[in-house]
Amino acid sequence: MGKNMLIAQSGGPTAAINASLSGAVQQARCSGQIGKVYGARFGVEGILKGNIVDLDGCLRSEEDFHVLECTPSMALGSCRYKLPAPGEDGEVYRRLLQALHEYEIGYFFYIGGNDSMDTVAKLSRYFAEQGEDIKVAGVPKTIDNDLAETDHSPGFGSAAKFIATAVQEIIRDASVYDTRSVTIVEIMGRDAGWLTASSALARDEHTGAPHLIYLPEVPFSVADFLGDVERLHKEVKNVVVAVSEGVRTADGRYAAESYQSGVVDTFGHRYLSGVGKYLENMVRHNIGCKVRSVELNVLQRAAAHVLSATDIDEARGVGQAAVRFALEGKTGFVAVIRRASQEPYEASYDCAPIERIANVARNVPPEWITPERNDVTGEMLRYLEPLILGEVRFPTERGLPKHFLLRA
Amino acid sequence: MGKNMLIAQSGGPTAAINASLSGAVQQARCSGQIGKVYGARFGVEGILKGNIVDLDGCLRSEEDFHVLECTPSMALGSCRYKLPAPGEDGEVYRRLLQALHEYEIGYFFYIGGNDSMDTVAKLSRYFAEQGEDIKVAGVPKTIDNDLAETDHSPGFGSAAKFIATAVQEIIRDASVYDTRSVTIVEIMGRDAGWLTASSALARDEHTGAPHLIYLPEVPFSVADFLGDVERLHKEVKNVVVAVSEGVRTADGRYAAESYQSGVVDTFGHRYLSGVGKYLENMVRHNIGCKVRSVELNVLQRAAAHVLSATDIDEARGVGQAAVRFALEGKTGFVAVIRRASQEPYEASYDCAPIERIANVARNVPPEWITPERNDVTGEMLRYLEPLILGEVRFPTERGLPKHFLLRA
Repeated sequence: MGKNMLIAQSGGPTAAINASLSGAVQQARCSGQIGKVYGARFGVEGILKGNIVDLDGCLRSEEDFHVLECTPSMALGSCRYKLPAPGEDGEVYRRLLQALHEYEIGYFFYIGGNDSMDTVAKLSRYFAEQGEDIKVAGVPKTIDNDLAETDHSPGFGSAAKFIATAVQEIIRDASVYDTRSVTIVEIMGRDAGWLTASSALARDEHTGAPHLIYLPEVPFSVADFLGDVERLHKEVKNVVVAVSEGVRTADGRYAAESYQSGVVDTFGHRYLSGVGKYLENMVRHNIGCKVRSVELNVLQRAAAHVLSATDIDEARGVGQAAVRFALEGKTGFVAVIRRASQEPYEASYDCAPIERIANVARNVPPEWITPERNDVTGEMLRYLEPLILGEVRFPTERGLPKHFLLRA
Repeated sequence: MGKNMLIAQSGGPTAAINASLSGAVQQARCSGQIGKVYGARFGVEGILKGNIVDLDGCLRSEEDFHVLECTPSMALGSCRYKLPAPGEDGEVYRRLLQALHEYEIGYFFYIGGNDSMDTVAKLSRYFAEQGEDIKVAGVPKTIDNDLAETDHSPGFGSAAKFIATAVQEIIRDASVYDTRSVTIVEIMGRDAGWLTASSALARDEHTGAPHLIYLPEVPFSVADFLGDVERLHKEVKNVVVAVSEGVRTADGRYAAESYQSGVVDTFGHRYLSGVGKYLENMVRHNIGCKVRSVELNVLQRAAAHVLSATDIDEARGVGQAAVRFALEGKTGFVAVIRRASQEPYEASYDCAPIERIANVARNVPPEWITPERNDVTGEMLRYLEPLILGEVRFPTERGLPKHFLLRA
């Protein structure tokens, strides 16, 4: 038997990150080259606090892995901890190394977004400098789809599928009465518009909704928005708008920010809410029509009851690939997804140097946004379409999805 | 062949109301006693406007019916029209009767909530007074579950299942970090707490969440709420609260109302938002901890991607039963669901006089709320549990649920 493996999860939750955990653990087991498999609770903080569990004891049957793969959020818990530079705080690195020695770890996998990949980059450099034979690898995840080097990020496909499903249902709901209305759907994505773009997948020829899509990559103008809505409101009975929570005005401020600084309660407390509610108020006061806003909120990253089978297969696959590459002797890399073929869609796994991913964000390319800057192009749709394909039959108990709960 | 049938939908959308439409149309066809089947668009307003479609032409195959049953909102559209008393506006009744004569209607079915049942009551009385042989019946639907006479309302089970599923996912999401937090979930139900109570179905022994449940049947006190949250915040790492959008203070005002009248923007516009956002702000300012609110919003009534098979079977069943009873010669009734057996759960269909349902609302009984008035009892859970059982495999197209769209 080889050395032991440690795995942890970090950053914001997604519905697919546990499938990567499942894939990595399964691959470690079937490789026959890894000793025990440990999990750190709440990211690297768990390593520092000695909060480490024996995953071999928790994941026994095939059903355990299936339930884990269909459980949203992180089974191991997460953290938002940013590792200091080794020069700044060498003590943290020594403590991490000590913990890894204690558990005889030869392989460390960190599933996370671009902030978490910074941890992978720093650790792999530090171990190399210290002459430690500990392979360190990143496994990508983020609903935001803003990681470089990978065609798309595990977790994004399921979030996009939930958004398209929800927007399609909101379109049905919005057109139920024989009266004119405007519906605004606020979608996650502070900097990248991939999730908001996914709302376009809900579009049918019958209604043409969503009619307007505003991404954070385009400077947002409230006046242009009101102009777009007013024009469409005359042509279309039920206007549906998708807007990113991250849209900013030309001066770089979040669209709702200037407005909200002026919204206070009787105690003088600033009243916080999202851009959807802000634009709803704007439409009501300026156009005066029936208007509603819907914030899809945390379900976008947590709705494991609408998993994309493509996404879950790839999330598992990228976890497996990371372990395979590490066993081949690679370190300081991130396992990534390549689009091997578009029709029929096919993915393959590769590894990319960690430096090209850590702290880099990938936005929607300008050419995938229409010249009017309020919609996405057909090329964007072709990119998105395969990622939401396939349904996952999740296990249920008493009429609800069954979740994996780590009791350690 | 007998006379023709007309069917329409009314009130707020649900994910199950199209299953009742499907059941009624299927029963009419297989009875062999009904001629043509027509649908009025946008409720009784469609009859007045001559907006009537031939449903035989739209629903041809078994697949058509299956797609229809899995489509949220109303395939025929809806209205919020209240029929005047015959003494007030006899002209409306004459026009309705004329339209029904024109289409040779012998059976009129109206699927809706307690406001819509008022229309059924008035029309059946009017036709009887006029000596018209037109059978009129109501088919119940409402996510609010506040209809009298029926054990529960079609549409409620699927909404309850979505709420429990979403709350369970929000609980996973809320406990991902190793830090204390409060999460508030705002749930629909202006007057009745059935939907908010359904959040209790998401409770697991591990987290105990949702920890607090506030129904509109109980006068709401912001001070008590803050006391409950502050106490729990010390005991439980991640507190999850379910609150009805309709909670009112002892003076009868919506909880957020007094606060919001003092929330204005720089233009002096009143800023509207829900009770969840209001309580989030209250917790932030008074307890000062990490807090988030989630409004489940229209997905509660539109999320046909989480249908309860029990609910859809019963929604179809109650539509079929209404047609059967009308063909037996009954009129002025509502088809209702009886709980024939609790274990194993079994439902049967019956008819109830329309007068006992129209304009009557059924709230959560006080004995199903705990003495502390911030949770529901085991008896409530036993009532709710069977209603969310079973999953519906909806048809999909390009990774999304396939919806029935009436192109007429």
